[in-house]
Amino acid sequence: MLCLALGRTALRRHGLAARSAAVRAYTPGSQRISPERLNTSLHDSCKWGAAFRWGSDPRETGMARLTLDDADFAARRWLSTEMQALGCHEAVDAMGNQFFKRKGRREGPPIAVGSHLDTQPAAGRYDGILGIHAGLEMMRVLYENNVETEHPLALVNWTNEEGARFPRSLCGSAVWAGTAQLDDFHALRDVKRPDVTLKAELLRGGYLGDVTCSHQANPLAAHFELHIEQGPILERAGKRIGVVLGGQAYSWFTLTVRGQANHSGTTPLDARADAMLATARIIDRAHQLARKHSGLASTGIISAEPGSINTLPSSVVFTLDVRHASGEKLSRLIADIRSAAADVTSEPSTQGCAIEWRTEFESPEIRFNAACIDAVREAAVRTVGADAAMDVYSGAGHDSCSTAQAAAGSACPTTMVFVPSRDGITHNPREWSSPEACADGAQVILDAVLTYDACAGRA
Amino acid sequence: MLCLALGRTALRRHGLAARSAAVRAYTPGSQRISPERLNTSLHDSCKWGAAFRWGSDPRETGMARLTLDDADFAARRWLSTEMQALGCHEAVDAMGNQFFKRKGRREGPPIAVGSHLDTQPAAGRYDGILGIHAGLEMMRVLYENNVETEHPLALVNWTNEEGARFPRSLCGSAVWAGTAQLDDFHALRDVKRPDVTLKAELLRGGYLGDVTCSHQANPLAAHFELHIEQGPILERAGKRIGVVLGGQAYSWFTLTVRGQANHSGTTPLDARADAMLATARIIDRAHQLARKHSGLASTGIISAEPGSINTLPSSVVFTLDVRHASGEKLSRLIADIRSAAADVTSEPSTQGCAIEWRTEFESPEIRFNAACIDAVREAAVRTVGADAAMDVYSGAGHDSCSTAQAAAGSACPTTMVFVPSRDGITHNPREWSSPEACADGAQVILDAVLTYDACAGRA
Repeated sequence: MLCLALGRTALRRHGLAARSAAVRAYTPGSQRISPERLNTSLHDSCKWGAAFRWGSDPRETGMARLTLDDADFAARRWLSTEMQALGCHEAVDAMGNQFFKRKGRREGPPIAVGSHLDTQPAAGRYDGILGIHAGLEMMRVLYENNVETEHPLALVNWTNEEGARFPRSLCGSAVWAGTAQLDDFHALRDVKRPDVTLKAELLRGGYLGDVTCSHQANPLAAHFELHIEQGPILERAGKRIGVVLGGQAYSWFTLTVRGQANHSGTTPLDARADAMLATARIIDRAHQLARKHSGLASTGIISAEPGSINTLPSSVVFTLDVRHASGEKLSRLIADIRSAAADVTSEPSTQGCAIEWRTEFESPEIRFNAACIDAVREAAVRTVGADAAMDVYSGAGHDSCSTAQAAAGSACPTTMVFVPSRDGITHNPREWSSPEACADGAQVILDAVLTYDACAGRA
Repeated sequence: MLCLALGRTALRRHGLAARSAAVRAYTPGSQRISPERLNTSLHDSCKWGAAFRWGSDPRETGMARLTLDDADFAARRWLSTEMQALGCHEAVDAMGNQFFKRKGRREGPPIAVGSHLDTQPAAGRYDGILGIHAGLEMMRVLYENNVETEHPLALVNWTNEEGARFPRSLCGSAVWAGTAQLDDFHALRDVKRPDVTLKAELLRGGYLGDVTCSHQANPLAAHFELHIEQGPILERAGKRIGVVLGGQAYSWFTLTVRGQANHSGTTPLDARADAMLATARIIDRAHQLARKHSGLASTGIISAEPGSINTLPSSVVFTLDVRHASGEKLSRLIADIRSAAADVTSEPSTQGCAIEWRTEFESPEIRFNAACIDAVREAAVRTVGADAAMDVYSGAGHDSCSTAQAAAGSACPTTMVFVPSRDGITHNPREWSSPEACADGAQVILDAVLTYDACAGRA
């Protein structure tokens, strides 16, 4: 691969000097992961938080391992034990992010493989978990083959990627990258037990670490992440590896539609300000517009007040998640949906409804680092052949979307590797990727990191 | 008025003989209610359960007096005291229905004025309450003028008309009419405190009466009810009294749409089985079909699982309330909505969703008794003039819809009187009918009962 300018800039920022003349203990592509060990380890570790059995095989359950719950603590402690046995040093920062560092020939920031051990409340065994196990397997291969890399390496377990228990996603990585504030996230409250804060749970588990949560205080030379695709694109295209070029832009909104509470039997259609009908029209039209613009629009949460079968709602509150690969086109799509929603308030039966928009979260379009992408592409071609790899964009937010934004993209060269998800199903106990797919991904991660290490060494 | 065959049949069933030659102590139209006393009494009694202040006048609050709560018990005890002072005898049946009987010249079942004191959780001061006060005012007028009627009269306070706390409406009147079972309704559970049954609350308040709850054991010769219209039709037409010919047919359903839980960012539109989009399409089309058929369709309750902003729902559960003045046309409308919902399951983005329908409640088309209607029409013409009265159908269910169904319509001749509701607003703290409208209605009730009493006497 070519060591591109983007990579060089970052390497210089971290004080990496030109490589010594020492002989490397490996050549890219020479190291092989163990598919058996990878998959066994992954499923063994799912005993912490296993839930929602859907088949008879021991591996056929889903997961409910919410961030900083007892199962998450158990999995974190297990990971520490494994990594210590491989000679890695653990550091925990103020967001509970775990950094396991392995020495290289030089000092300086490590090239990291990172993801997360926490899950959604009704999740599968792969989202996040596979990424951690790819890093663990990389460390095991390097340990057993006594491989010396040029740079230090690291495995990172980021805290509260999911945002399911404490309702902001990518928490640990966002604070590290400087796109969110530590105090704000420490103050997040458990969605089911509002008296419990994220900080209190960090303290309870012993994960309020003494390392500053910051890419400046605790830098990484690069960040690679293996993740299941969580969509059907690779499977439908018959590809084994997705080389991820970036992440789509998205915005999350909560809409409140206020109508006129009234009796459902006595209020003629033309006398209604029906907040539920208005909501139905907005959801339907947001979908039509998303289709027209090649974007996405989705509603996952909805409630109506006062909630009586024969009373037209006084208000309906619902979420709208709008996405597009292009940030500019996302803005246009959102403007069109806002305009369509406004139209609804002057239509028969929904006339007089009022709509209030609240922006919950905005994530910009993410472009991953070209040098990292090239390392992944090289590794993918070596592992599965050029025909079985394809370039893709990430539809979901990932910790890599945070690390890629550190210092406006200049601090931490980042990219990701995707492997196919069966039927594209995710955030669901039946989420599944084949053992072969998991092994493909872990092999590409190992190879890409070693390639990047070798290349960065020539910078 | 003519004493029609329908009236005669019912009177004979109750053993009412031809009237004696005694001179009546009144002529129809000669007795007048006191508007001031009626309105003062109504608002005074709203101190039990007043809530949701919306204006500065003491009367400008809504109500939250759920059936068999402490406020309801207080209002019931107040009513007992008032009626005892007017020489009425109280009987309480096994559903807690209160019957206050005033003697007539003859023995036999009383001609009743009935409605309910319970309210929705965020209600106004008129729904049900006005009907009770019309009966109370009637008793006060007859008491102070020492009027002797031919038949006994009664005021009835029916238990749990609203179905808001224990989730079936018209409870007391339905068991009395034989359209529902006592044990089923005794077992109903408080929607917010499922450990509390309706029967337990009857016991707690001392309202598990010893009278059998049945139109056979405890018959009424007729049932008249004053109610606010709860719709905008009278107000829009500039009329003061609605002569109610019957009640529209309606069906209540709970629909469960099962889709595929999936990540909202990674699942292309064409790979979705989006249960929320399917729900939006069904609500929108049910509305379109209701409009086409001159019926009504409404959704008041909705929820989505698992309820995460970036997860397509695995299921959405929502209610559908479908109505039509004609029972036959209601069946056609429901069939069309079912067919449209089935179509949704083969459309893009909702393909593969499954829809389950559960029928919660069905109320047939109700036709009120012709003799009762004629008595009301006569009284309305005397009170407001022919131009200010109009025939209407009831859009809502009322206790009168139960009494009209007793013994398939032959046991209890029934009808209702409506007065205008401001802006048609109901089930809302701002529900409001003018003092003049309340007085119009109470006067028509008094006059119609005396007219019916006189006419039935000639049967």
